[in-house]
Amino acid sequence: MLNFEFWSPTSFVFGKDTERETGKYVKRFNGSKVLIHFGGGSVVRSGLLDRVKESLAAEGVAYVELGGVKPNPRSGLVYEGIELCRRENVDFVLAVGGGSAIDSAKAIAMGVKYDGDFWDFYAQTADPENTLPVATVLTIPAAGSEGSESSVITQEDGMLKRGRSHQSLRPVFSIMNPELTYTLPPFQTACGCADMMAHIFERYLTNTPDVEFTDRLCESVLQTLIRDVPIVMADPEHYGARANIMWAGTIAHNNACGVGREQDWASHDIEHELSALYDVAHGAGLATVFPAFMKYTLKQDIMRYAQLAVRVWNCEMDYTNPEKTAREGIAKLEQFWSSIGLPTSFQELGAKEEDIPQMAAKVGLKDGNKLGSFQPLDTQDIENVYKLCIK
Amino acid sequence: MLNFEFWSPTSFVFGKDTERETGKYVKRFNGSKVLIHFGGGSVVRSGLLDRVKESLAAEGVAYVELGGVKPNPRSGLVYEGIELCRRENVDFVLAVGGGSAIDSAKAIAMGVKYDGDFWDFYAQTADPENTLPVATVLTIPAAGSEGSESSVITQEDGMLKRGRSHQSLRPVFSIMNPELTYTLPPFQTACGCADMMAHIFERYLTNTPDVEFTDRLCESVLQTLIRDVPIVMADPEHYGARANIMWAGTIAHNNACGVGREQDWASHDIEHELSALYDVAHGAGLATVFPAFMKYTLKQDIMRYAQLAVRVWNCEMDYTNPEKTAREGIAKLEQFWSSIGLPTSFQELGAKEEDIPQMAAKVGLKDGNKLGSFQPLDTQDIENVYKLCIK
Repeated sequence: MLNFEFWSPTSFVFGKDTERETGKYVKRFNGSKVLIHFGGGSVVRSGLLDRVKESLAAEGVAYVELGGVKPNPRSGLVYEGIELCRRENVDFVLAVGGGSAIDSAKAIAMGVKYDGDFWDFYAQTADPENTLPVATVLTIPAAGSEGSESSVITQEDGMLKRGRSHQSLRPVFSIMNPELTYTLPPFQTACGCADMMAHIFERYLTNTPDVEFTDRLCESVLQTLIRDVPIVMADPEHYGARANIMWAGTIAHNNACGVGREQDWASHDIEHELSALYDVAHGAGLATVFPAFMKYTLKQDIMRYAQLAVRVWNCEMDYTNPEKTAREGIAKLEQFWSSIGLPTSFQELGAKEEDIPQMAAKVGLKDGNKLGSFQPLDTQDIENVYKLCIK
Repeated sequence: MLNFEFWSPTSFVFGKDTERETGKYVKRFNGSKVLIHFGGGSVVRSGLLDRVKESLAAEGVAYVELGGVKPNPRSGLVYEGIELCRRENVDFVLAVGGGSAIDSAKAIAMGVKYDGDFWDFYAQTADPENTLPVATVLTIPAAGSEGSESSVITQEDGMLKRGRSHQSLRPVFSIMNPELTYTLPPFQTACGCADMMAHIFERYLTNTPDVEFTDRLCESVLQTLIRDVPIVMADPEHYGARANIMWAGTIAHNNACGVGREQDWASHDIEHELSALYDVAHGAGLATVFPAFMKYTLKQDIMRYAQLAVRVWNCEMDYTNPEKTAREGIAKLEQFWSSIGLPTSFQELGAKEEDIPQMAAKVGLKDGNKLGSFQPLDTQDIENVYKLCIK
């Protein structure tokens, strides 16, 4: 196990009707003027936005609103949000929605008090020094941004999709009511599942020895999703399953499962080029990329893949041929993702073979750098992974 | 799953040599004059105390010292610590040691700015309002106090052992170097293991439905300890196993595994009377009480006990007789604890049958109140659990 520092200071306020406590928590964290940042019409239509606003008003907290966040959130709206916050003296950013609204809110929160272009943070040329507090009312379990220090934004000029991590991006509180996820379209529930499982795989696929405990924690997240996602596909208002999925998604990415080990994250970067080019859902892209990445890196650690197959997918260990067991686990993953309606190939995703060189180049490896740590990939390797997505 | 709020703001600074960063972290959390609180000679002899003091001095942080904390920490030293902090204008309490030093430090931190008797907090007749920041340099993985909001103190007048939980008791940081645990005597390592496993059992034994995910997290802690504690018994300087044990102990009790479910905690109260009366190690008392408690409450939820037996102890499920499987799991627990040198009976612990009525009465149930939530116990039930400890 490697040395680490783990700091997850977010207050998670979890359960039925908790959105009605939003105002109370904003006050606890000294917010006096809030930007409510959200996406499309669903939070309006469902009445959630009204309940949040009532809760703020009841505590005497002022607010302004900025909707319109799209999946794969764009820089344009971030610039708009920063200007609005400056004009209105906003001191607290509240995202109401899923990972896109939260990531956009984090970008705004970093940018308000920064003199330069907020994109500097995503280009890794500047460090945030004075980030406004961010909080969330979560409606989609997927990105884990409600508990993480990460944010991913797409720069519209060139459709560059880039992530930034910083301790100041941990939300001060996150309101998590599983009932708010009842109305998610099945495809969105499935994409969220792929995203959460991918957050685990990025951590699970490591060369760091002696990580027994975090391995087990990772497996717990996967086992829970494999059990509970099909339940909500059949019964969208199953509170218990929705609740388990929602909390598992947070733990999958607040890094409790990932401390003390090298993490990979190549597949996320490989996927980002897919969603940037085709504007497909991040989870759908991950469901396409990850099985290919696993097949490509199988021989890096067959026994680790076999462990995953046996413990998580209940495969029987073939002691004479562990590779067979390892491959069975990957096949089960593909079957599972297909069974909940996710694409696992370029054809199903709507991606094109001829775009592969362009996407691989856009990952942007330079000067002999490689991607990821489990089996570091060069540009040719990345092309090979994309090619394995073609069935 | 029940509604919950989860807030674990402690910075966990984990790994080799991290005690040398103590001063840096004290400064980050604005400590200017520190009480270093510790137990016996081992932290002195090992040189740990000197390294911590050097680290404070290097950052220009002043300190005073108070050693002498005993297992089952006593109120007398707490009063002394409170007086010392007041006299010396201490604004930060740093525990160097295990759960006893940390719990004593928490009691002092609550008491310094409180006008009344600090015992009021443990008698639940007052709430802490102005607690000094507490931090830890952990040397014994066991109590989980380095990440928890709990503290347990024994009032010397009457040997009453009582706990207090409060959000302000979460340490601001905890330094966790697994190497510091190499020199623990085997019995102390074993007692720590029992304590950590007990923290999981108190959460695992619940009637709350739909807790699949936290069940899995709980099982991960148990599986890790069952694998890694025997490793360090044979090879005390196995860094990887020591590291897994240490981090598992924190996660076992910072409540990440326990959110959203009723927890029991009857066994801890039943044990407290044992360690108060005989001054035995808390972990040894738990190893004696828990199997008895499990046998006594088996029929409350046979399938939950069977799940534990199958998933954690690798018992084969007897589908025609689940109770047999459930009992097998409890037997495996007793065998495991015996195998690492723990007592699992009154005889081995040195407790006496004739003291049972006195101990059961001292748990202090009044007015028809019952203890715990899984299968609430009255005073007669508590006597029956003690009796099951006699073999």
